[in-house]
Amino acid sequence: MAVIVLLTDFGQSDEYVGVVKGVISGINPRAKIIDLCHDIPPQDITWANYLLGSAYKFFPKGTIFLCVVDPGVGTKRKIVILETKEYIFISPDNGLLTKVLEKEKSKKIVEVKDKRFFLKEISSTFHGRDIMAPVAGYISKGIDLERFGSEMRKIKTLKLNKPIMKKDCLIGEVIHIDHFGNLVTNIEKGSGVFWQKITQRGQSHFYIEIKKRKIYKINKSYAESKKGELLAIWGSRNLLEISLSCGNAEKELGVKKGEKIWVNFS
Amino acid sequence: MAVIVLLTDFGQSDEYVGVVKGVISGINPRAKIIDLCHDIPPQDITWANYLLGSAYKFFPKGTIFLCVVDPGVGTKRKIVILETKEYIFISPDNGLLTKVLEKEKSKKIVEVKDKRFFLKEISSTFHGRDIMAPVAGYISKGIDLERFGSEMRKIKTLKLNKPIMKKDCLIGEVIHIDHFGNLVTNIEKGSGVFWQKITQRGQSHFYIEIKKRKIYKINKSYAESKKGELLAIWGSRNLLEISLSCGNAEKELGVKKGEKIWVNFS
Amino acid sequence: MAVIVLLTDFGQSDEYVGVVKGVISGINPRAKIIDLCHDIPPQDITWANYLLGSAYKFFPKGTIFLCVVDPGVGTKRKIVILETKEYIFISPDNGLLTKVLEKEKSKKIVEVKDKRFFLKEISSTFHGRDIMAPVAGYISKGIDLERFGSEMRKIKTLKLNKPIMKKDCLIGEVIHIDHFGNLVTNIEKGSGVFWQKITQRGQSHFYIEIKKRKIYKINKSYAESKKGELLAIWGSRNLLEISLSCGNAEKELGVKKGEKIWVNFS
Repeated sequence: MAVIVLLTDFGQSDEYVGVVKGVISGINPRAKIIDLCHDIPPQDITWANYLLGSAYKFFPKGTIFLCVVDPGVGTKRKIVILETKEYIFISPDNGLLTKVLEKEKSKKIVEVKDKRFFLKEISSTFHGRDIMAPVAGYISKGIDLERFGSEMRKIKTLKLNKPIMKKDCLIGEVIHIDHFGNLVTNIEKGSGVFWQKITQRGQSHFYIEIKKRKIYKINKSYAESKKGELLAIWGSRNLLEISLSCGNAEKELGVKKGEKIWVNFS
Repeated sequence: MAVIVLLTDFGQSDEYVGVVKGVISGINPRAKIIDLCHDIPPQDITWANYLLGSAYKFFPKGTIFLCVVDPGVGTKRKIVILETKEYIFISPDNGLLTKVLEKEKSKKIVEVKDKRFFLKEISSTFHGRDIMAPVAGYISKGIDLERFGSEMRKIKTLKLNKPIMKKDCLIGEVIHIDHFGNLVTNIEKGSGVFWQKITQRGQSHFYIEIKKRKIYKINKSYAESKKGELLAIWGSRNLLEISLSCGNAEKELGVKKGEKIWVNFS
Repeated sequence: MAVIVLLTDFGQSDEYVGVVKGVISGINPRAKIIDLCHDIPPQDITWANYLLGSAYKFFPKGTIFLCVVDPGVGTKRKIVILETKEYIFISPDNGLLTKVLEKEKSKKIVEVKDKRFFLKEISSTFHGRDIMAPVAGYISKGIDLERFGSEMRKIKTLKLNKPIMKKDCLIGEVIHIDHFGNLVTNIEKGSGVFWQKITQRGQSHFYIEIKKRKIYKINKSYAESKKGELLAIWGSRNLLEISLSCGNAEKELGVKKGEKIWVNFS
């Protein structure tokens, strides 16, 4: 049974996601459609990247990811299909797949061109419904990727902000605030100089600073801290997060996306 | 595989949608249930009309639409099944299907009456769960529509506000504001005097006015305008929309539903 | 076809629910996954209890409920499987299943221990994804419950606030405010002294008081009251609710969760 996963910035208050599912179901009624996230902030290709980059591997082999964050809809920006060893991704060619390509080798890239696979009427505002949804439906039925258009060598990638390593500190930033008010940063577990530093030195030789509040260790669980205490923890996306035990760190600190975070080594 | 589509004003923060799916799945585990929209503003039959009227045709033939915007729940208002050439609609008889009936011929209308198809206990506040969900489940299993009750000749229709054509201007209004802050109006593509006027005259002989801001053309894509510019475009529902390029027109203009929009012909 | 129902406090703006579905679908692609509710207020085990306690019986026999409201994630709190006559529940052992156990006999309780059924990497913040989702997937494939760990005799239960019966009045409280602004109280239909009192005496011998507003009867339908009137009604969860006819009682009264409600007998 084919699985099609939807990742969009459509929100959930309109019928946009529903009609995409309608179009897919008309083409392949047996496809299993799963919502990954529809609350990517409008046009925020960067966060869509991080989210997809940590989430895709939790889906079964063969999953088709339909990713629609598409500020260029209606222009000549391309729509592409990326095939990796285990997955297929459909997306506007705008860098949304940068993080995936950091982790997966590209097996094939196809530019979507063949109008026989589109809806008959193409709107200028909703290619997710009129082009990408039917393409996902046909791919899920086993149509060869070549048939959708012509092969390409390369797709666009974004230059994502990495944390900056200074002499005695690492400067990262908050790239997402989740439903619980957890502050998700761009500092990744298991990569970069920072990771070497803290694993070499142990946890006692650094402190984390955000909004003038200091945190002296990285927790193994939320509950290790007392209720109401600020804490740092490796979140489920393998990114460093700042949380408030049994509370909401966003409200506690008054933080917005883009807030800087320092890891100071002593 | 039967497809059942849900359109309600239940919101998504309670278990209302979930239990409706539970009831349907108990009757027909093989039904594929798709959420069209659950964020119709409470009791807003008018917007439910427009949304359904533009969305239903994106679903496969045979789809069953379960539409529950039901301010009269618990009173003697009827519950009806409408069969058209390709679809089946279940709804309180309150005008929710007016737009569908503008576009589709009614093949059969049945008033739902037979309690054998309802849940055993009928609450006074949630007929979506206790009556309409099981009826949808049984219809999806192929039970003849006549068996649910008695045939009717006519269902209720609403008088929906159409744009007003004056001598040199057309006055419409904002009937929905979407997740992106796009202002959706009641001015329809391809219908009415307005449409004739702009297609006859070309785009240069009119301007659009909303909140004292003027727009001189109808875009073919969002990106045709510069970032931050106000623009007009035919949206994916074939209704005229006012948008802010890469931004949020609702916030920019401080507009609410009901705001007037003028198209002035010169 | 196995049905797995999700009840969490994950919200819907992140990818948390989506990846849980990905993990389940990787193990059992044929499982039908239904969202019951993801907007339990963070860590609010009490409301999860009431919601689940009234909702589970609308799902087909054999349904597996995956319930993740888990403030103790990453600590030594147990994860349990509860089997009743018709259903299976998976949950942290934190009292979430108290209401279910008021209504259903426990047939078997198993503490989840066997890591062969978990994801290979276990995060410290997301056992819903790493432990409970795969366990749900394997249960849905028919793996015997004993294989997941060792049998237990008892799981934790919460002492839920019941309404207090005084000599001439009953004092309850608002435990949830729904999408429509309906105030849901902890006063249950068909149970307790209150129920006996009002059924014995008829509706004329009591009045309900909340925020100094009085209501003199319990409605059979919303529409029995005029537009804008405050009313009391037995809601679809069999709990007493305060509503505003065609309006929003929460906004009208400025009420928050925890607000007291009095039923005065004369």
